[in-house]
Amino acid sequence: MDIKKNNIIIDFEPISRRVVFSDDNSLYEILSNLDVPITSICGGLGTCGKCKVLIQRGNEYLIAPTSSEIKHLSREELNNGWRLACQTKIDEKNKQLIETLQPPQFRIFLPRELLLEDFNILVSGLSKGIEIQPAIQKIFIDVKKPSLDEPNADFERITSTLLSENLGLKKNDMIEIDFDVLNGIPGLLRENQHKITLTLWNNTKIISCEPGDTFEKNFGIAFDIGTTTIVGYLMNLNNGKIYAVDSKLNSQTAYGEDLITRLTYIKENEKNLQKLNSIVLNDLNEIIANVCSKANIKPSHIYEATIVGNSVMHHIFLGLNPVNIGLSPFIPVIQKNLNIKASKLNLNILKTGNVYTSPIIAGFVGADTIGVILSSQIYNEKELTLAIDIGTNGEIIIGNRKILAVGSCAAGSALEGAHIGDGMRAASGAIDKIKINPKDFEVSFTTIKNKKPIGICGSGLVDAIAEMLRSKIITRSGNFNREVTNHDRFIKKDKNTEFIIVKSEETSLDKDITISQNDIRQIQMAKAAFYAGAKIIIDNFKSNLRIEQVFLAGAFGNYINANNAKFIGMIPDIHDDKIFQIGNAAGIGAQHCLLNKSLRHKAQTLLDKIQYIEIAVDKRFQKEYAEAMYFPHLNLDYFPSLQLYNEIPKR
Amino acid sequence: MDIKKNNIIIDFEPISRRVVFSDDNSLYEILSNLDVPITSICGGLGTCGKCKVLIQRGNEYLIAPTSSEIKHLSREELNNGWRLACQTKIDEKNKQLIETLQPPQFRIFLPRELLLEDFNILVSGLSKGIEIQPAIQKIFIDVKKPSLDEPNADFERITSTLLSENLGLKKNDMIEIDFDVLNGIPGLLRENQHKITLTLWNNTKIISCEPGDTFEKNFGIAFDIGTTTIVGYLMNLNNGKIYAVDSKLNSQTAYGEDLITRLTYIKENEKNLQKLNSIVLNDLNEIIANVCSKANIKPSHIYEATIVGNSVMHHIFLGLNPVNIGLSPFIPVIQKNLNIKASKLNLNILKTGNVYTSPIIAGFVGADTIGVILSSQIYNEKELTLAIDIGTNGEIIIGNRKILAVGSCAAGSALEGAHIGDGMRAASGAIDKIKINPKDFEVSFTTIKNKKPIGICGSGLVDAIAEMLRSKIITRSGNFNREVTNHDRFIKKDKNTEFIIVKSEETSLDKDITISQNDIRQIQMAKAAFYAGAKIIIDNFKSNLRIEQVFLAGAFGNYINANNAKFIGMIPDIHDDKIFQIGNAAGIGAQHCLLNKSLRHKAQTLLDKIQYIEIAVDKRFQKEYAEAMYFPHLNLDYFPSLQLYNEIPKR
Repeated sequence: MDIKKNNIIIDFEPISRRVVFSDDNSLYEILSNLDVPITSICGGLGTCGKCKVLIQRGNEYLIAPTSSEIKHLSREELNNGWRLACQTKIDEKNKQLIETLQPPQFRIFLPRELLLEDFNILVSGLSKGIEIQPAIQKIFIDVKKPSLDEPNADFERITSTLLSENLGLKKNDMIEIDFDVLNGIPGLLRENQHKITLTLWNNTKIISCEPGDTFEKNFGIAFDIGTTTIVGYLMNLNNGKIYAVDSKLNSQTAYGEDLITRLTYIKENEKNLQKLNSIVLNDLNEIIANVCSKANIKPSHIYEATIVGNSVMHHIFLGLNPVNIGLSPFIPVIQKNLNIKASKLNLNILKTGNVYTSPIIAGFVGADTIGVILSSQIYNEKELTLAIDIGTNGEIIIGNRKILAVGSCAAGSALEGAHIGDGMRAASGAIDKIKINPKDFEVSFTTIKNKKPIGICGSGLVDAIAEMLRSKIITRSGNFNREVTNHDRFIKKDKNTEFIIVKSEETSLDKDITISQNDIRQIQMAKAAFYAGAKIIIDNFKSNLRIEQVFLAGAFGNYINANNAKFIGMIPDIHDDKIFQIGNAAGIGAQHCLLNKSLRHKAQTLLDKIQYIEIAVDKRFQKEYAEAMYFPHLNLDYFPSLQLYNEIPKR
Repeated sequence: MDIKKNNIIIDFEPISRRVVFSDDNSLYEILSNLDVPITSICGGLGTCGKCKVLIQRGNEYLIAPTSSEIKHLSREELNNGWRLACQTKIDEKNKQLIETLQPPQFRIFLPRELLLEDFNILVSGLSKGIEIQPAIQKIFIDVKKPSLDEPNADFERITSTLLSENLGLKKNDMIEIDFDVLNGIPGLLRENQHKITLTLWNNTKIISCEPGDTFEKNFGIAFDIGTTTIVGYLMNLNNGKIYAVDSKLNSQTAYGEDLITRLTYIKENEKNLQKLNSIVLNDLNEIIANVCSKANIKPSHIYEATIVGNSVMHHIFLGLNPVNIGLSPFIPVIQKNLNIKASKLNLNILKTGNVYTSPIIAGFVGADTIGVILSSQIYNEKELTLAIDIGTNGEIIIGNRKILAVGSCAAGSALEGAHIGDGMRAASGAIDKIKINPKDFEVSFTTIKNKKPIGICGSGLVDAIAEMLRSKIITRSGNFNREVTNHDRFIKKDKNTEFIIVKSEETSLDKDITISQNDIRQIQMAKAAFYAGAKIIIDNFKSNLRIEQVFLAGAFGNYINANNAKFIGMIPDIHDDKIFQIGNAAGIGAQHCLLNKSLRHKAQTLLDKIQYIEIAVDKRFQKEYAEAMYFPHLNLDYFPSLQLYNEIPKR
């Protein structure tokens, strides 16, 4: 065995993350290495007391509570197993003993309020009852040895053993074998006393044959290939847990920030498709290498990858020419889901492993949207639900048990900070929350990782606009209110007015961080596109439908202040209790497809059900869009709950 | 189009051979180029008048009857369209006119007595009602163009067009596409006004997509890979006709005449398997090139290949290690039928074409035997039938509607001329028929192609032994009868007696062609192996079964004098009317599998039904074998009809 044996396993719940304990780190550091960001004000110094976790198993093997824990936790809390993640470590002297115990030796519960990011959706997703029923099944078998009386071939003895095991295989199931695996069989059987572990795909095809019992080493990887970001989730297919997550910026951004630029690049020269294809493959293979190293497994123990991504990313990943997606009538090469051998695509999992790509709905509504639909299960909702997935491209889904319609709008990049003077992605130092005192226009804010501010990310921008409205700094038409622009938080640049969010002395830069008239316009355009898009889709049904529930998906959708999103009119006037931030729903869709093969069939059948609405070419769009440019809308009757608007000037 | 357009088509019936007429040849030469040997004594000189053919269509475009035809054919025959093949040509001056007519412009019937070789079985095989229902289906479609109202992807528009055609596809049939074909689709559609021809495999998978209408160019190739000979039949899958046949000696013979030698060679070094694999692939690819050139088609218009062959040839062709077939308990890697992409196997048909291999029954009863069973339809016979396929390896099948059992014996090579002093394969100059005058021991004989004799092939050997028995030159135990060895047709070589078949002055050699004591032993061993093998198989059923019918398969089985085979005791004492020479039944099985996909399912289900008997290890074998060494058998009661044996001395 070339794998280092690690016997100490920690399960973090309810996020279903398992980790092989290696170094002498605190729980806070372990979670941080796992890319599970948790609430902490002091950054792990033990001074804020925020990082409370509940040790459900293994408390007795940890170090004794530190003085900081005794200060921040009550005696009852300590007795019940509550600890501070930044203080708690495994006690060195217990290590040998722990290694003798049945893993997992530790089970640690992370309370909901502790979790930042999208892990709450992972929980809620799993709580929607995803049964672990992967396409991949590993089976250890003891194959009958041949004799003159029963001289069956090696393969036939394997299949008859398989059929005799209680695996849900039917007698008439025709089991096939990947031809690349077949030739290894005779040697493998005879060198291992006929004891081998098979990997069966979809109950029909043997895709690997390994010596001895390797049942435990059963992994899959779910990928969400975004225009800007790629995320990979390494999952154990026996228990459904995530063993590692890795993400990176999509290296294709060097060839264009948005899809249209990349399509133009591909159109220029037929070799450019190949170039972008190998770039994305490199990214994915880097992620595979990283998650394997984090979880201490071999890439050949990853038997399947599931992929979601928008239509263009989907095509580039598969090496399919996407140029017709960029030309009216926006036609992809193929929509249906595909299963392709990993070696064919040069994806560095097991060579004979399977790569599953979710179906795509239309030229600009891709497999990522199918991922959102699957993980949100919008098709099971009783109430009419609007789901918006805000990435570089924005997708709008409206549906419930009866109807399902989707559309797309190119509106998201402003919310990722593009085309905004001081805009930036949600990274360290980005202003993510903003409050403005209506009396003195004083601005309070938080930044990611509490770093000195260097710019404003999407959630901060939405906050800024909403607060500027509440403070009557801007009018409903998105202009600066001339009655207040003489205040000292306003500056003039080339005759343009800007509102200062942070003065230069408080930043890491040597300039003010401001919101300009153009910035407001960008946000207006983005929010109007979403609102008008949803309106066009819903009007399409002709009966008087009303949105009753909103799902906000995507990283941005998760961090945004939903009330402010409603206040600026980006989403309809729905009670806050009915607005759900469902996290990276596309990626979770990929995870669900990895864990449960019946969802793939569901995905394919959804294709027939989904109505695709080409929003941008709809005749009504321009009018709806123009009306939605107002805050919250030209017609205030649509937002009856926002009483404050009666006081905000219109122009 | 890079294909030379040829508009003159000749159909030869009842052998279902179609030929694209190219050169200015006589029908005799055309048939000869097609490897369809026909009866002719003069070799095409017009002197014997034997090569009569009936022109069923197109007589008016041929040259006027020659003086030779007027001499050999009656006025009535000429009026009815009878011609001599060696005299008849297309009239040059009609050629342009003929090219404007709807092909096939000629239909020429070859009477049964004209045909040598195994084309009669081809006819009788087809007459068993093989429906043309290949796995390959070409369909010309006019794909709906996309629009903003119906922006379906290219692949989805293709499948919906396919489903709307009346092809027997069901609405829920999931049509797939070979991934290598997919990327070409967008360009192909747009460059050809959306008019394309698809090739569908097994109603489920698109394996090619061609511009415009190429429906007519729909070919498959059936291969019979023998230990010694490889034959390929190029067939048109729209009409089921054979367009070309090519055969060659298996180049693997350089690494061993028999299977055991080749297995030993593979065992020596793991690279040797790869070597033999590329050797057989070269042979097959040479045959593909030849048949394509004969029929004037492109190899990429061959969409499927079907393969039969014994287990070792099957494994070597697939690159599977066959060494365990050579070791008790004689275990193959896999038995089931396989469908593999041509490019994977380096077979030079369409890269995305399918290669189908028939299932194999056991280590020494291969896919060729399945071919014999399928083409003979022994499983539909009412009478208990013994089928023996005599090649380098011999296979024995016993069956009817109720039972089916097979076994194998290593007995065939003597009958192919191996280990026989003057033995040779059935080639020009081989003595194929022998008569001996019991009074003066004068020998009369015929040779293949009427060439001067250079040796004796299998059918000649069987004739020689039978005739030597009838003339009491040898005894029932296979010894020379001492009472006659002083006759001048006997010579002594190293104290061994030999009987002269042809004296040296009549041969192309400077030596006599003789039958030695050793030669007799070789034939005894071969015939005893077949008889004893059949006996062991039948005894296995324990109820008192009796063979009622015999099928002789394989090239040897076709040329042999069946009555003589019975006389020497190679097959049971059955009335001559119940002995059928069914030709190259294995190759015909491959053809049938190519033409009708349901036979593949049949082949696979037969695997469960067939009882495999390991003859050589059966305890009774030695006794049965020893008894069967006698002519016709130790126990004359088994051959009641052979009265003459009462006069032949036993020892």
